[in-house]
Amino acid sequence: MAPVASFTAGDTGEWRIEAINAVAGEGLPPAAFLSTTAGEGGAEQGGAGLGAWTLRGVASNTRYTERAEATTLGSRQEGLGRPAASRAVLIPMRKSDAWWALAQDERRAIFAAQSDHIGIGLDVLPAVARRLLHARDLGEPFDFLTWFEFAPEATGAFDAMLARLRATVEWTFVEREVEVRLTRA
Amino acid sequence: MAPVASFTAGDTGEWRIEAINAVAGEGLPPAAFLSTTAGEGGAEQGGAGLGAWTLRGVASNTRYTERAEATTLGSRQEGLGRPAASRAVLIPMRKSDAWWALAQDERRAIFAAQSDHIGIGLDVLPAVARRLLHARDLGEPFDFLTWFEFAPEATGAFDAMLARLRATVEWTFVEREVEVRLTRA
Repeated sequence: MAPVASFTAGDTGEWRIEAINAVAGEGLPPAAFLSTTAGEGGAEQGGAGLGAWTLRGVASNTRYTERAEATTLGSRQEGLGRPAASRAVLIPMRKSDAWWALAQDERRAIFAAQSDHIGIGLDVLPAVARRLLHARDLGEPFDFLTWFEFAPEATGAFDAMLARLRATVEWTFVEREVEVRLTRA
Repeated sequence: MAPVASFTAGDTGEWRIEAINAVAGEGLPPAAFLSTTAGEGGAEQGGAGLGAWTLRGVASNTRYTERAEATTLGSRQEGLGRPAASRAVLIPMRKSDAWWALAQDERRAIFAAQSDHIGIGLDVLPAVARRLLHARDLGEPFDFLTWFEFAPEATGAFDAMLARLRATVEWTFVEREVEVRLTRA
């Protein structure tokens, strides 16, 4: 299976937390830094006593992306860890029970035909690098953790992308969403 | 999220293990009984020292089933726990990395158009009751745990269903599969 990644907020970490914004529902407690770990055992490294909070997710397989879309995304996106990408945003999100009760074709129609989720994301490639982690099956408080990295000058494009996504039909099913804004420490 | 269910093989349990058959890849250690638990904390109840092995899964959301299929399934299937259903089979299964690297439309095409997975299952409804649990994102050794319950006289129909499924294109992606045959104790 894909490795577990974890994000621990606390007094140390490679990213400085600039802001934690509750977009929908309950937010997350404030903290100064965020550390990220990937790989087996990553969840354990934070230590409950050290962090204000820890969130975990797994990379898992795609759930909606079709082959043609995956090919287009693959040809345009860049990886994490680019030296110029000194800004990051972690967005933990939970969708409603109504969303999860939908059948696959119903969720795909909302995601793609009604909301153009992939198209909106494509518009900020390659400036914004992205990694999606799944957390729902782990019993975590969020269904997804999405990690974004970009250079400071791409902040406007990133914010515009968020605004477009949040105006979609898909986002009417989002019942909790938090923005954790970060700068490389 | 959906509750975690666990299956613990050992010296006690509500189901007697009649046979453990390695269908593909490595099997599972022998044991006399299987106990099942559902709900939060279920995974802990087995106790590592007591059981020969414990497998965990979560009910999660559907991954391929479309609305029309879900409606048909819902109109024909019956629940677990029927008094006459004194036979059960637990089938832990893992698919290959090649399967998980496919895009959603590719997996759906193999599952549905090429393999008629849902149609083969429909043919044994309502005699065979079924519950699918997802385990891959939990870091378990299997991707899926499927639990089937039926009356003794449906055993032939159940075995025929397994034979049909194992002859499909979808099953060429199965790299580990174990059959745990059970009788209510």
